[in-house]
Amino acid sequence: MKIGFIGLGIMGSRMAANLQKAGHELVVYNRTASKADELVANGAQLASSPEEVAQQCRLVFTMLSTPDAVEEVATGPQGFLKVLPGNSLWVDCSTVNPSFTARMAQIALKMGHRFVDAPVSGSLMPAQNGQLIFLVGGEAKDVEEIRPLLDVMGKAVTHVGGHGQGASMKMTVNMLMGHVMAAFSEALTLGSSLGISEEVLCQTLLSGPAAAPFLKLKENKLLTRDFSPEFPLEWMHKDLHLASVTAYEQGVALPGLQTVKELYAQAKQNGLADQDFSSIYSFLKG
Amino acid sequence: MKIGFIGLGIMGSRMAANLQKAGHELVVYNRTASKADELVANGAQLASSPEEVAQQCRLVFTMLSTPDAVEEVATGPQGFLKVLPGNSLWVDCSTVNPSFTARMAQIALKMGHRFVDAPVSGSLMPAQNGQLIFLVGGEAKDVEEIRPLLDVMGKAVTHVGGHGQGASMKMTVNMLMGHVMAAFSEALTLGSSLGISEEVLCQTLLSGPAAAPFLKLKENKLLTRDFSPEFPLEWMHKDLHLASVTAYEQGVALPGLQTVKELYAQAKQNGLADQDFSSIYSFLKG
Amino acid sequence: MKIGFIGLGIMGSRMAANLQKAGHELVVYNRTASKADELVANGAQLASSPEEVAQQCRLVFTMLSTPDAVEEVATGPQGFLKVLPGNSLWVDCSTVNPSFTARMAQIALKMGHRFVDAPVSGSLMPAQNGQLIFLVGGEAKDVEEIRPLLDVMGKAVTHVGGHGQGASMKMTVNMLMGHVMAAFSEALTLGSSLGISEEVLCQTLLSGPAAAPFLKLKENKLLTRDFSPEFPLEWMHKDLHLASVTAYEQGVALPGLQTVKELYAQAKQNGLADQDFSSIYSFLKG
Amino acid sequence: MKIGFIGLGIMGSRMAANLQKAGHELVVYNRTASKADELVANGAQLASSPEEVAQQCRLVFTMLSTPDAVEEVATGPQGFLKVLPGNSLWVDCSTVNPSFTARMAQIALKMGHRFVDAPVSGSLMPAQNGQLIFLVGGEAKDVEEIRPLLDVMGKAVTHVGGHGQGASMKMTVNMLMGHVMAAFSEALTLGSSLGISEEVLCQTLLSGPAAAPFLKLKENKLLTRDFSPEFPLEWMHKDLHLASVTAYEQGVALPGLQTVKELYAQAKQNGLADQDFSSIYSFLKG
Repeated sequence: MKIGFIGLGIMGSRMAANLQKAGHELVVYNRTASKADELVANGAQLASSPEEVAQQCRLVFTMLSTPDAVEEVATGPQGFLKVLPGNSLWVDCSTVNPSFTARMAQIALKMGHRFVDAPVSGSLMPAQNGQLIFLVGGEAKDVEEIRPLLDVMGKAVTHVGGHGQGASMKMTVNMLMGHVMAAFSEALTLGSSLGISEEVLCQTLLSGPAAAPFLKLKENKLLTRDFSPEFPLEWMHKDLHLASVTAYEQGVALPGLQTVKELYAQAKQNGLADQDFSSIYSFLKG
Repeated sequence: MKIGFIGLGIMGSRMAANLQKAGHELVVYNRTASKADELVANGAQLASSPEEVAQQCRLVFTMLSTPDAVEEVATGPQGFLKVLPGNSLWVDCSTVNPSFTARMAQIALKMGHRFVDAPVSGSLMPAQNGQLIFLVGGEAKDVEEIRPLLDVMGKAVTHVGGHGQGASMKMTVNMLMGHVMAAFSEALTLGSSLGISEEVLCQTLLSGPAAAPFLKLKENKLLTRDFSPEFPLEWMHKDLHLASVTAYEQGVALPGLQTVKELYAQAKQNGLADQDFSSIYSFLKG
Repeated sequence: MKIGFIGLGIMGSRMAANLQKAGHELVVYNRTASKADELVANGAQLASSPEEVAQQCRLVFTMLSTPDAVEEVATGPQGFLKVLPGNSLWVDCSTVNPSFTARMAQIALKMGHRFVDAPVSGSLMPAQNGQLIFLVGGEAKDVEEIRPLLDVMGKAVTHVGGHGQGASMKMTVNMLMGHVMAAFSEALTLGSSLGISEEVLCQTLLSGPAAAPFLKLKENKLLTRDFSPEFPLEWMHKDLHLASVTAYEQGVALPGLQTVKELYAQAKQNGLADQDFSSIYSFLKG
Repeated sequence: MKIGFIGLGIMGSRMAANLQKAGHELVVYNRTASKADELVANGAQLASSPEEVAQQCRLVFTMLSTPDAVEEVATGPQGFLKVLPGNSLWVDCSTVNPSFTARMAQIALKMGHRFVDAPVSGSLMPAQNGQLIFLVGGEAKDVEEIRPLLDVMGKAVTHVGGHGQGASMKMTVNMLMGHVMAAFSEALTLGSSLGISEEVLCQTLLSGPAAAPFLKLKENKLLTRDFSPEFPLEWMHKDLHLASVTAYEQGVALPGLQTVKELYAQAKQNGLADQDFSSIYSFLKG
């Protein structure tokens, strides 16, 4: 059975390549078709529209960068949903806000399809090495059906709960990372203002009780000021904004989140949008 | 050679006991003398004043809860500094602000003594089990002189830099922990408002990239709402306040710290001062 | 010529009554028809749907509480826009976010109509006494056409700029009021914690350089703790949220706004949603 | 009876001049003696130390820029307190923190003197024109004794309460102004990001319900970006810091204050320390 894969950016192209390596036949689509060249060279079929993907598959993965892009490929004039045979399964791996995901799930279900939200934790390297973590929302049997495929692309699959709860968990994870990155950067800023070297600070803090694993992966960026993007600051800002809007919708107050979000907004205004989100440190140092 | 130990609270009593177990002869002092009973039963000598400690020792440890208490035992009417023989060594393990520590160092040096600030990371259990982490500021040779004693009380000794930099690092560590605790609590708050169970949230977040080790130790408190104090919220608030004042003195802006500090202030106003600082979660949940 | 008026809540009913008193013939609609009783008793015609309003008017005012309500009466199944004769004028007095207003303007213009956004500054009493301030966006000639009607309902008309800029200005005014109310409440909180009576604080601060006129109108509420709503806290929170989302869309960082917004969110969680927004003081006092 | 006046900076020199114009004989002191030239030319006597002032007066005004400077002239080696004849009256017009003022009052009283704290609201021009507002703490009879003199230098005298409450009120006023300035600047930032001109924004907001009088005095600075200092941003930051420390001491949480304080800290880091505090707008605009 062929698998559809729509969205071949930094993440999607590598995820699709891992499915291909594991022997799956792919029908792929990307707005910029050239991004599919390598997959096609290795045997994938290139569709000229999302619709065309749906004509040959009953399982479609999407991995796109914004809710608008997801909505367009799913429900737009050339969207795949209306063409898919009944009871097909759509797996959206995009990082989008929970209320959007809930709406997509509803649309898919109304049209007689099944839906799983499966956003990933991890960036370029884990995508390439099949080391992503999937945070999954949906029916248990649907999750089981695709688990072997997720296992090919990732190292862990957490079935969080029903439709939309994968997206909810993903947003929660990112919000925590964005916040902790800022907290760590403030600690470095205070410590170094007191004359402790950044090396000693990183060494001590990153072997101590507050040493979040992802911070260790950022240590080199912080010390060398090489903020080439693994996860651009602008995306982190967007994720914190989504969390902030969601908090409003849910009626919870999250003061720390709001202040940290504005720090990223200031950093964006200062030209750091395309840098790694750890460059929030460079903004704080002024 | 006898070692002086002043301050036998939750932490100090256990640290002194470990020195004693390792075979060191102690002269101890505590405002409430009864706290010394067990140490005395095991052979320690009880002094009736800080002065009396100094009459028999050339090495004095202090482990007190506030700058005022430290200043009193060191330089007050019955303070030990003026009685110590020349070139003695004072090791202050209290958690105090860097500018206070710098002042104490200056006073000690002016009086012909040596000074090391050696605040600890870790609370009751690590103190008991000799698993503390010492963050040390002072001259290298003085640090080497006491390293065998610190090794008896702790599992790691980080010589951060000159006088006061142990205190600086300690403040930085605590500020990071207070901030991360709040960030994690906000993440739990948002996630659970979206219908994800606290168990699944903890499980996922605490095995993910932002899983700071100390958060795992708080998981049970968060899930059971048993906030019996390991480190009282009021103390964390005080530490964040010290960090905030220090940031002002150093001319650095730390917006996240300020907002998180006020969260703890609000929690204090709401009756959580004596609870563990992880009860910030219970405040956020409203 | 008959004037359509849709939305007869606290504000709308009083604004319509002033038009009626000035001799204008009204066709009115409200979801809960009974709200129209007094207007009807005084000669207004009650329509059974927004559509029916449009069948008799070429000028329609709307005054509703949410974007969704505005969208429904304008473009819903029984919406008035599709029935209005060509080149009619829709004046939306609702307080909604600028991007929503821009979208409504676009829809109206595409359908061959004219559009003016004219949100008001002022609450119940100014509405009743014809003392509102209109902040208006739209074409100059359209604004001039309705100016005599606005003058009947208000004491001042500010033509801010093109379509949507009335809404933009209104949001800006409300955001400033919400922020200043919180700032004043914090000042009262600090001052009274130092033993100065609330009376002396209000007297001094409200005759000083920072004495915003609306604060004087809140003095009695603050001193008596009678927070019966003139403008409910929940609405202020919504307006601050809209400002926050707009700031994100426009790429500007507004840290103060974010923190103050969360204060209102906390107050809402603490049961103050339906109280006047000046009850933020009561939340701060704990 | 001669009046002592210590501290002849921007404010003090003008306040002393007004006393002189009203016919009072002055004995003045300033660290930089040349600042006294004009007063001396008009008949004032120049003292060579604070002590020398006290040898000829039973009423001394101080108007200095920091607590340290106040402490030095009052209690330093050449301080005036120890020389003043018994039951003299010291009036401190400096803006200092309430706990410092309380300490000064205590020292003065212990030495058999009387004390009034009388900080002023208003800057250069009001000082020159005798239009200051005095916020006064102390015994009623002492306040009445000096009221005629305060009336010469100012247009209003508010007797707030006991010793230190003038200082408390002054801090509260400044904190409110600093906060409102930031709130207004954020409103301008949002409004102008939406395409409304700064002129229209100022015009509308400054004639509306949130129009604090002092904001009108800043309008020209905001529109022309001429931030020549009336009240330097650095001083406002200091005052917000004092308010923040006082809030901690009093056990109240003031989240908005903290966030706004950090905005000023950031502006300071960006080189605006010596500009007028209204330049916070220029920082927000990025």
